[in-house]
Amino acid sequence: MLTIVGELINTSRTEVDEAVAARDEAKIRQLARAQEDAGATYIDVNCGSRLEDEAETMAWLVPIVQDEVSIPLCIDSPDGEVLKVGLAAYDNLRGPAMVNSISGEDGRYESIFPVVQEYGANVVLLCMDSSGMPETADDRMKVVDTLYARLKADRFEDDRMYFDAVVKPVGASITAGVEVLETNRRIHENYPDVHQILGLSNISYGLPHRGRLNRVFILQTMAMGVDGYIINPTLKQTMADIITSQTLLGLDKSCKRYLKANKNGMFD
Amino acid sequence: MLTIVGELINTSRTEVDEAVAARDEAKIRQLARAQEDAGATYIDVNCGSRLEDEAETMAWLVPIVQDEVSIPLCIDSPDGEVLKVGLAAYDNLRGPAMVNSISGEDGRYESIFPVVQEYGANVVLLCMDSSGMPETADDRMKVVDTLYARLKADRFEDDRMYFDAVVKPVGASITAGVEVLETNRRIHENYPDVHQILGLSNISYGLPHRGRLNRVFILQTMAMGVDGYIINPTLKQTMADIITSQTLLGLDKSCKRYLKANKNGMFD
Repeated sequence: MLTIVGELINTSRTEVDEAVAARDEAKIRQLARAQEDAGATYIDVNCGSRLEDEAETMAWLVPIVQDEVSIPLCIDSPDGEVLKVGLAAYDNLRGPAMVNSISGEDGRYESIFPVVQEYGANVVLLCMDSSGMPETADDRMKVVDTLYARLKADRFEDDRMYFDAVVKPVGASITAGVEVLETNRRIHENYPDVHQILGLSNISYGLPHRGRLNRVFILQTMAMGVDGYIINPTLKQTMADIITSQTLLGLDKSCKRYLKANKNGMFD
Repeated sequence: MLTIVGELINTSRTEVDEAVAARDEAKIRQLARAQEDAGATYIDVNCGSRLEDEAETMAWLVPIVQDEVSIPLCIDSPDGEVLKVGLAAYDNLRGPAMVNSISGEDGRYESIFPVVQEYGANVVLLCMDSSGMPETADDRMKVVDTLYARLKADRFEDDRMYFDAVVKPVGASITAGVEVLETNRRIHENYPDVHQILGLSNISYGLPHRGRLNRVFILQTMAMGVDGYIINPTLKQTMADIITSQTLLGLDKSCKRYLKANKNGMFD
């Protein structure tokens, strides 16, 4: 089962920031609905760009989004207090929320893990620590090993962990892609029961035809064992690629989903 | 350096069979030229469908094709005598030809390896033997291990070997794709200096939107270390995907080829 976190409800996007400022509930509902209809399995809610009222905005957004859709939410903030506000407003009966994110940065585990645990959430684990953005697969695996050991010591289940290898622009460093792919391979080999998720649009930063690079990188990372993406699910071409990839990876019994997608015009 | 073997000059294709029957040299030249212009690094010549005059046809085709293009040829036949005719007509000064193919089938190595050796050719090695088409990665690796050991005993260099994992339809068996990907991974890990090549259009046999499946399977197998494809290089979308994939795999210093392809309108 692939995880698709719909990323559109993020106040760093102008239309969302304006909708929040105007308390335009209809706009938020429309973005949530479009993403669920397109195949999202979680709706991300991120208002980190609103430094002065992030918690208040989260408290306003979560009930609207979850009233509109039937899938769980991903509560997205580096701030434990804001996460707590979001999770408190979230209706756990529809399945556990996702929390985005814990990392290896100093103090982040201590401030966020208790909230994750209290609300029974799943969690995104960023492969970076206080020494800054990782360069190599080795850098990333050091964080993976540390976070995994801590989570197991706290009796957290493998299938609630979603490791994010942290994607950087290939335009800035030509090895940016392969270091992530190698990290994906090692996580899949060493920790076969955890999930992997990627917010991957950074890969194409600064280059032309970004959508093309993003789509190809999804297909490469899926081959390495990544089973979740934080993306815009309303991009039909991206979702069509993901379905095709699952079929070729043996995750689509009798090619049923592929044939259904074809029937529904996904490939036209 | 990626190997792209242009597959269009094959008498199993009606237009080629008709051109051969009519001794239509201009048509053959046009197909050869179009493939070199599109980025092929070898031009495949296959007349295996002409059971009654395969050798004679090969002797006619090779001089025409090599007169038209500046890249080497891939002489493609299961018959050692036909390969010998093709290689004898081939001008080795433009670089070694490719021979397609040796396999693990009884007697094939004995009949074809001496020809490969005599003409200093590179060789495609099919991962199948006389027990029939392979099912699993284990089946394929048994053939790889045997052929590699034989070739090394005959002092054949690793970088002249092009292992073809043998692709079967995912529509017939949902594990057809993953068994090939796992084979690719193991060959890359166990024999890092050999090449891997795929004639991959079988993967999509019997399913709709075959081009989509073929393109995604190229991207997945490239991530596993495959560095050669036997394809139609005049399909712009396929070549654009391959260039994008190389960039993300770190094989495109400063993203130069990606930016050049963009400038040349490959991504439009």
